[in-house]
Amino acid sequence: MLFNSCSLFINIFILFVFRLYYFYNHWTMQVAIYFFICVDLSLALFEEPALFPLPFLATSIAEVLCLTAFFGRLVHFAKVTPQMVFWKDTKNICIMVTIVLTLIDLIIYGSLEAVNIHSIRWSRALRPVFLINFPESRQIRRTFRSIRNTLPDILYVFLLFMFSVLIFSLMALKLFGVRSLKTVEGLPYFTDILEIAFELYVLVTTANSPDVMMPAYNFSRWYSLYFITYIIINTYIFMSVFLAVVYNNYRKHLKNEILKLAYLKRRKMIEAFNILKVKVGTEFVVTEAQWKRLAKIVMPHISSPHLELLLRISDEGQKGHVDKMNFLRLADLLNIQVVAINIKRHPLEDWMPRVYQSSASLLVQRMVRHRIFVWVYDVIILVNAIFIALDEKKPFISNAEWLFLSLYIIEILLKLYTYEPRAYFGRKQFWNWFDTLIIIAALVATVANATIQSGNYNSQQILDIVLILRILRLLRIIVSIQRFRLIVTTLINIGPTILTFGGLVLVVYYVFAIIGMEAFQGKVWFFDPNFTTPEAQVCGNPALTGSAFARDHYCKNNFNDLASSFIVLMELTVVNQWHVLAGGFALVTHQAAKLYFISFHIVVVILIVNIFIAFILEAFFVAYSLEKSEVETAIEKKIQELGVGVQEEEMQDGKLIDNMDAKDSGFSGDDGDNKRKALKGLYFRIASKKYRTVDALLQQMFESEITPEDEGPSLDEILNLSPSDIYPKNPSFGNSA
Amino acid sequence: MLFNSCSLFINIFILFVFRLYYFYNHWTMQVAIYFFICVDLSLALFEEPALFPLPFLATSIAEVLCLTAFFGRLVHFAKVTPQMVFWKDTKNICIMVTIVLTLIDLIIYGSLEAVNIHSIRWSRALRPVFLINFPESRQIRRTFRSIRNTLPDILYVFLLFMFSVLIFSLMALKLFGVRSLKTVEGLPYFTDILEIAFELYVLVTTANSPDVMMPAYNFSRWYSLYFITYIIINTYIFMSVFLAVVYNNYRKHLKNEILKLAYLKRRKMIEAFNILKVKVGTEFVVTEAQWKRLAKIVMPHISSPHLELLLRISDEGQKGHVDKMNFLRLADLLNIQVVAINIKRHPLEDWMPRVYQSSASLLVQRMVRHRIFVWVYDVIILVNAIFIALDEKKPFISNAEWLFLSLYIIEILLKLYTYEPRAYFGRKQFWNWFDTLIIIAALVATVANATIQSGNYNSQQILDIVLILRILRLLRIIVSIQRFRLIVTTLINIGPTILTFGGLVLVVYYVFAIIGMEAFQGKVWFFDPNFTTPEAQVCGNPALTGSAFARDHYCKNNFNDLASSFIVLMELTVVNQWHVLAGGFALVTHQAAKLYFISFHIVVVILIVNIFIAFILEAFFVAYSLEKSEVETAIEKKIQELGVGVQEEEMQDGKLIDNMDAKDSGFSGDDGDNKRKALKGLYFRIASKKYRTVDALLQQMFESEITPEDEGPSLDEILNLSPSDIYPKNPSFGNSA
Repeated sequence: MLFNSCSLFINIFILFVFRLYYFYNHWTMQVAIYFFICVDLSLALFEEPALFPLPFLATSIAEVLCLTAFFGRLVHFAKVTPQMVFWKDTKNICIMVTIVLTLIDLIIYGSLEAVNIHSIRWSRALRPVFLINFPESRQIRRTFRSIRNTLPDILYVFLLFMFSVLIFSLMALKLFGVRSLKTVEGLPYFTDILEIAFELYVLVTTANSPDVMMPAYNFSRWYSLYFITYIIINTYIFMSVFLAVVYNNYRKHLKNEILKLAYLKRRKMIEAFNILKVKVGTEFVVTEAQWKRLAKIVMPHISSPHLELLLRISDEGQKGHVDKMNFLRLADLLNIQVVAINIKRHPLEDWMPRVYQSSASLLVQRMVRHRIFVWVYDVIILVNAIFIALDEKKPFISNAEWLFLSLYIIEILLKLYTYEPRAYFGRKQFWNWFDTLIIIAALVATVANATIQSGNYNSQQILDIVLILRILRLLRIIVSIQRFRLIVTTLINIGPTILTFGGLVLVVYYVFAIIGMEAFQGKVWFFDPNFTTPEAQVCGNPALTGSAFARDHYCKNNFNDLASSFIVLMELTVVNQWHVLAGGFALVTHQAAKLYFISFHIVVVILIVNIFIAFILEAFFVAYSLEKSEVETAIEKKIQELGVGVQEEEMQDGKLIDNMDAKDSGFSGDDGDNKRKALKGLYFRIASKKYRTVDALLQQMFESEITPEDEGPSLDEILNLSPSDIYPKNPSFGNSA
Repeated sequence: MLFNSCSLFINIFILFVFRLYYFYNHWTMQVAIYFFICVDLSLALFEEPALFPLPFLATSIAEVLCLTAFFGRLVHFAKVTPQMVFWKDTKNICIMVTIVLTLIDLIIYGSLEAVNIHSIRWSRALRPVFLINFPESRQIRRTFRSIRNTLPDILYVFLLFMFSVLIFSLMALKLFGVRSLKTVEGLPYFTDILEIAFELYVLVTTANSPDVMMPAYNFSRWYSLYFITYIIINTYIFMSVFLAVVYNNYRKHLKNEILKLAYLKRRKMIEAFNILKVKVGTEFVVTEAQWKRLAKIVMPHISSPHLELLLRISDEGQKGHVDKMNFLRLADLLNIQVVAINIKRHPLEDWMPRVYQSSASLLVQRMVRHRIFVWVYDVIILVNAIFIALDEKKPFISNAEWLFLSLYIIEILLKLYTYEPRAYFGRKQFWNWFDTLIIIAALVATVANATIQSGNYNSQQILDIVLILRILRLLRIIVSIQRFRLIVTTLINIGPTILTFGGLVLVVYYVFAIIGMEAFQGKVWFFDPNFTTPEAQVCGNPALTGSAFARDHYCKNNFNDLASSFIVLMELTVVNQWHVLAGGFALVTHQAAKLYFISFHIVVVILIVNIFIAFILEAFFVAYSLEKSEVETAIEKKIQELGVGVQEEEMQDGKLIDNMDAKDSGFSGDDGDNKRKALKGLYFRIASKKYRTVDALLQQMFESEITPEDEGPSLDEILNLSPSDIYPKNPSFGNSA
């Protein structure tokens, strides 16, 4: 019977817990599908207007191949999913519709092309659908969902904002339209209501301040009041309100999503427990053997001391079985990275103990560990920065390079002499790796530079990279200032989620770039700056004569290929001078082209950038209010109880190795008691919480709010949880703050 | 004995509770001191460089007068304050030092002026000290304190940010310095490290994007990667981190300040209770008579039904005395605005009941109350907007004005006919007042306009005001859209605190304006736009030849008087083109002048604007998570129990009067029971929570966390409470979110 329940357990387990936490099945398939997505998206580089032109036949064959791959993936997915679930999922419908639409477009375009009629490849704007809708892009979808959910709330604020802009436009028309004022370019000032509304919208983005005010201000000092009022109301207050609404919704939906996940996890764990449970005395429990087997399946590479540690935490009384409450914690226990520190003596000490322990050697070691050692090297880096800034033509300075480089290498060697090398380059010793890699890169760069210069061979690209690497060396100063390191660590932690935003921005940019290329390709041309023909002065388009676009030499900001389009869109995201770009492209096409730029501003700056800011704010607040979770505390307590712990404060100071050595010498006597023997020679510590992601943190925070007895709502209820269900639950100050 | 304790109570009470909540003592003195502060600050308008020049003698006499007033106020304050407290208060020391410094400066400047040596009136920059340090400017001081407390945290981020800018500057120097590229103006591109650092700092503010990138981008497409990396790291990530740090600190200190206030209030109330208490049975209580007398002293204008209501809430069992717990709530009870609604019949109904109740009249009333009535008027407003936008020269359109106006007046008359006029113009009926005032203003405007035009008299100023008033009439559309009204109400609620920011900005602007005037006065001159002499083209300063400052016609953006300086500073706050202004003033003085503009950017944009955004975010989050406080719920319950309540939902819908009438007709029968008689003819409701300030809300939220038994820490502990004491108390999700 035991065997039976065991095999049953394994099946069920694979279905539930395994899939939930470690779904790395079919990674080759996943890589393949990502490859095809990349190919599909990058086709835009080769299609008209192309960066690297390829014939239509080649790109269309590649596209059909990609579509086939997507369709195959979908069929595969349909096979492993219940039919009901598959057809209810909008993701799958989306992919199928997009495949069909793309095929139709390809056929129409191809046949028109065959009879030499040029039409529009509109389906290209749909390509990001594949990136969004494959099951693996959960994060990007979540952000899109969050944006969609924010829309109704933001809509009313936006309408009120537009209403306010219109009211001010009417006022401007009445106040300034009759004055026959002139702008700096000598054009009529504020005479057309649409023109005024556009100018005032631009003023909200601050891009034409104070130019838009100057003609009125020059006419009368009092008119500045109109603009000041406008800026306070629309630029400051409304833009802050947009941020507030976006942020509030982001938080609400984040909470909702995470609570959903937490409940789902709890449910799966309870189901697993119900399958595995055995009655012992009055309560149902899971036997130690089964528990261990389960843990081994979930995490095949777990070390047995680590497993032993977790078992001791789960089976508090060493009764040989794990009760329900402790069983439910299994997933959390496995999720917490416990670092086993293998304390070893320095290899040099083993090899030649007499020399290593000699008083001269000990003096060197004490010196390296001293604070002043760090300071001296900080000063060296600063001096190096000054040398880099100076003219490197002088031989004295280029020779100094070698001096600095050797000083850095000596530093690393000294550190390796003092600290145990394997611990120094431990998996979690980010800053040591960082430090060493920078110095190695700088060494390679300087050597490469010297080789290039001596051989009279001068490749600008290589030289540029060398120069950058040499300067990056200065980043080492961050390592030695504790506060800088903390800030950088927080930023690195939110890195993965920033990449999600990268995906989101890619999707939006791609769609806008495709539309932009269809609308504006070939309207504006870039000529070499040395060309001074009249045509080059107006970017090859007479319509731009006298425009700010031509005056500012923005000819290279065009939509003539994908790369250029992306750079233009980046400039539009930064906002400044976007009205000049919009004005330029409106001149070469039609005034309605400004709508393209306005909608880009609304989507990217008002929505996405605000969500980005909301995310950074939230990440920082979570990082500020970091507290250990209940489970972590339990593990830490057990580690301390077993006497195999390392103080976290000591770890944080970057003095890990120093400390290890000190402990080691104290430990060389044998105070090993009974407990310690089981985990001999090892020290444990919880991997620094600084390395956890924001999502994981939030999830833990919510889980601690679910009591062990709470089995959560039913599956359907969980999946339909809406933010309003959870939001007003907790009307305390904390909730609002 | 009763009399004795009573008089004692009054003395103590005046010292404590009275001062804390209703310290309006000496309002004439306060007005006088504010008057002198205004005079002192506005002296800058009359001193060199003056907007309205006055001789030095006149301004110095005015200044000495102000100083005397301030000194007198200080002496007065010292008289009513214990000596220890007075001398420990840095505010008083600050004022005294400033008075002395100003006098010294006046004497030096005056005597040098007498022998015709022109020196600098440096003490003028100290004038805002008086505004900040008088006891009445608590709010501005709090914001300053919050900024001061944020500084250490922001310093490290700022240093890391500057470090990053420097690293990128070095890279730019090495990458672009040797290419001998040229900017659009033909100047050398990125050759001087200081110049590069400034340009890159400007790029963080986005003000010179994409111009700063164009020369490198024109040279090679790949160089755009450098700028994109720079913008992502410095503009997006670092600026968000600044906001996060400022916001986090703002919240931390706000919580601290408010907890302090809450504890102080609790302490004072307990002290008052201990003085008034009488032993009844086993517990100490306050008798009803004393309680009433106390309430009357604190709030002399309280209506007796309102007092009766509060007593019933405090003396639950009608035992004739109030116990400690209920006594402590007194201040909160008095703070909650309870609106007594006097239900009266429409005067027309009294005057001619038959006509008013006739079927035609009832039809009109029903029509006015109908949703469609509102919609019809919305459409009329929109049509009116279109008419305003059209050319008003045509007689058809100017005649239509009268039609619209009469339609609006008919609307108001109809509403007054339907609803009870005194209720319609009730104290809290903000939107009705708003609506009516706009129409009256529009009426006045149109009549004035007609008079002016018919009389052939054409004053532009009056015409401008008339035009604006006519357009403001369109704001009425906000009234009829519920969601718009909600957003606007929230914005109006945070209005008072936005005024605090106004004070803060005034202080900073004033100091910077004084410094700017001393440094840049007379360097740049504005000429009439019709002047096209070469001198006018370069703002009267040959140093500006060919500069962007002259090209953009920024001559009027100068520091030649206080008003101009303020407008320049406003433009710098909006950020765009600030580098052009900085560059212009650097050209006419010295490159070091850029430091003035950079420090203004750091102080105003990085600190103050971020605090402003943090405040708006916080205010919106509090508004979103509004919950009724415990005390309010108690009052509301009592109101319902007594059967004298009005449903809040009915109130919110703006249908107050409609509803009142309906209730009234039901009420005209006599279902008045015993309880209701005491409060006859009155309905109560709690004044809409939408009108409460954010501060009050936060305070209530904290108070509900203090249990009634908690007497709080000792006075010294309260005053020395630091944010770190309270912050980690509540490590739940809510706290971090």
